[in-house]
Amino acid sequence: MKKNLTLKQIAKELEVSVSTVSKALKNSEEISESTRQKIQAFAKLYNYKPNNIALSLKNRKTKTIAVIIPEIVHHFFAMVISGIESVANKSGYNVIICISNESYEREVINIEMLASGSIDGFIISLAKESQEKKDYHHIKEVINQGMPVVMFDRVTREVYTDKVIIDDVLATQEAIQFLLSKQRKDIAFITTPDYISVGRLRTEGYTKMLLQNDIEINEDLIVRIANEEELITQLEHLFDTQKFNALVAVNELYAVAALKIALKRGIKVPDELNIIGFTDGIISQHSTPAISTIKQNAFKMGEISAKLLINKLEEENEHEHYITEVIGTELLHRETTSL
Amino acid sequence: MKKNLTLKQIAKELEVSVSTVSKALKNSEEISESTRQKIQAFAKLYNYKPNNIALSLKNRKTKTIAVIIPEIVHHFFAMVISGIESVANKSGYNVIICISNESYEREVINIEMLASGSIDGFIISLAKESQEKKDYHHIKEVINQGMPVVMFDRVTREVYTDKVIIDDVLATQEAIQFLLSKQRKDIAFITTPDYISVGRLRTEGYTKMLLQNDIEINEDLIVRIANEEELITQLEHLFDTQKFNALVAVNELYAVAALKIALKRGIKVPDELNIIGFTDGIISQHSTPAISTIKQNAFKMGEISAKLLINKLEEENEHEHYITEVIGTELLHRETTSL
Repeated sequence: MKKNLTLKQIAKELEVSVSTVSKALKNSEEISESTRQKIQAFAKLYNYKPNNIALSLKNRKTKTIAVIIPEIVHHFFAMVISGIESVANKSGYNVIICISNESYEREVINIEMLASGSIDGFIISLAKESQEKKDYHHIKEVINQGMPVVMFDRVTREVYTDKVIIDDVLATQEAIQFLLSKQRKDIAFITTPDYISVGRLRTEGYTKMLLQNDIEINEDLIVRIANEEELITQLEHLFDTQKFNALVAVNELYAVAALKIALKRGIKVPDELNIIGFTDGIISQHSTPAISTIKQNAFKMGEISAKLLINKLEEENEHEHYITEVIGTELLHRETTSL
Repeated sequence: MKKNLTLKQIAKELEVSVSTVSKALKNSEEISESTRQKIQAFAKLYNYKPNNIALSLKNRKTKTIAVIIPEIVHHFFAMVISGIESVANKSGYNVIICISNESYEREVINIEMLASGSIDGFIISLAKESQEKKDYHHIKEVINQGMPVVMFDRVTREVYTDKVIIDDVLATQEAIQFLLSKQRKDIAFITTPDYISVGRLRTEGYTKMLLQNDIEINEDLIVRIANEEELITQLEHLFDTQKFNALVAVNELYAVAALKIALKRGIKVPDELNIIGFTDGIISQHSTPAISTIKQNAFKMGEISAKLLINKLEEENEHEHYITEVIGTELLHRETTSL
């Protein structure tokens, strides 16, 4: 079978990163001239043509939108996709999903593959690694080529486009405020490293609210999970070394893990320990006791993302005007908070 | 923006089904000649060209495979996709996912869209509605066009292609055998209607094993859930009207729903009631008590599906030879079975 050269193969052959190849082929000045020349020559030699389909399709609309999500085994993203599908299908659009698996490289590869002709626009939530690298050239590139992009949940200020988010700072503040109103002032906070925008903003909400109430921040009560394989170890360490009567986690996986450890240690939930998670997913609903949670309205987030994208696609005149839509959240009390 | 006509629009305009349009454009004799002529004329008039990209791409390999799954908010399918991604990415293939949402029409639309040029092959698990209608012309069509297809989990004998399944009959028999060996002979069985292949085969395993042990089948102990909105009502009715000391469910959602009802009624699990589910997902793992389950090795199912497809894509000579790979299952004891 005749095969076409892929970005990845060029990268491997020349021992550079996929991102370098991608930038060099676009003649980006970020890449040294000698490297650019080498890569361009190689691509020419082996007949690499990323845009040959795109050209033939210039005026053809595919009625297909692509969604790039960081992971699939995650109820939040699954619900966002259900929301996107619901609006897209009603409007006669097909939906294609690709998974970056939290990898910057896979995000770049997926976007390049789809941008070259098979779709009309993107809905994207950033991979952890892209947020860590702060490299968004691949997204800026498709926008520059005139393809509409909507970002949701994990977004960045560095890309100017339509966005759909929740107010992570405010949502966390509301949860902390509730706990403080019940005289629970020793609050552990299970979050992600700060390079993940959502984790950083929620941590900001936590510290802001404590400071507003003249409570000193105890850094040992803040646990940042960089690697999910170490989740249990880090939580056990928290329970071993700290005293707290409430715990807030930035997702339901962290919340249920904390709940299980507490129950095993004979800690009474909610009497001795209140627990609040983010994401109203199947884990929170089905655990015993069921977990109180900050409901992010993922389905609605998907619906609005799809609406924004389709509006852009069907606008007669192109406007250089972007909006950020903020979706409301609500604190849903189940069995892990004391009312 | 200039728009192209879609199958769906033609169907709507002429007030026929998408499947009729699709078949008529392929000149299928299933459709009356007058209808065929009308649809073909309409498509020509409005310049519908499903295969214009396909033609230009005839010799171009996209290094992309498409996966069509029935639903996304489902741990089993998410894990299969992780397995597919893992093998595909190592072999330099991209993966595109589309969701049929259990709808025959969306399955047809997704397959038609992708088959016309953007991908090299398909991995498919059938929508409920396709299994109910027993209409697989859209899948046979892409196979006839020379595009490799691998089916997994929800498969059909009517399509001759590579398949990856578990032995649903045997897996269920093992679970029932375990319960019988513990003298639990009154076993409720929560399943799907028989048109879903997986549900039918598991029900077959249940009845076979009981009959082998000279236990009469009590049809009232078999609950078939056609509509998940009625899950709770149907389960409550089972608990209200029947006596049983064990319960097997064909997925973890049904299992956890039964567990919650049992706990609310003060029934001791596992002492008074053993529960076994299918699918080793996050619900089974995180519920309290954690649910004993028949592990389907979804990740492995994805890996093998991807390997079979990529082998087909990279074969130098095309063979008309297909295999069905059967993945082993195991009964995983957690806290809802008595050992």
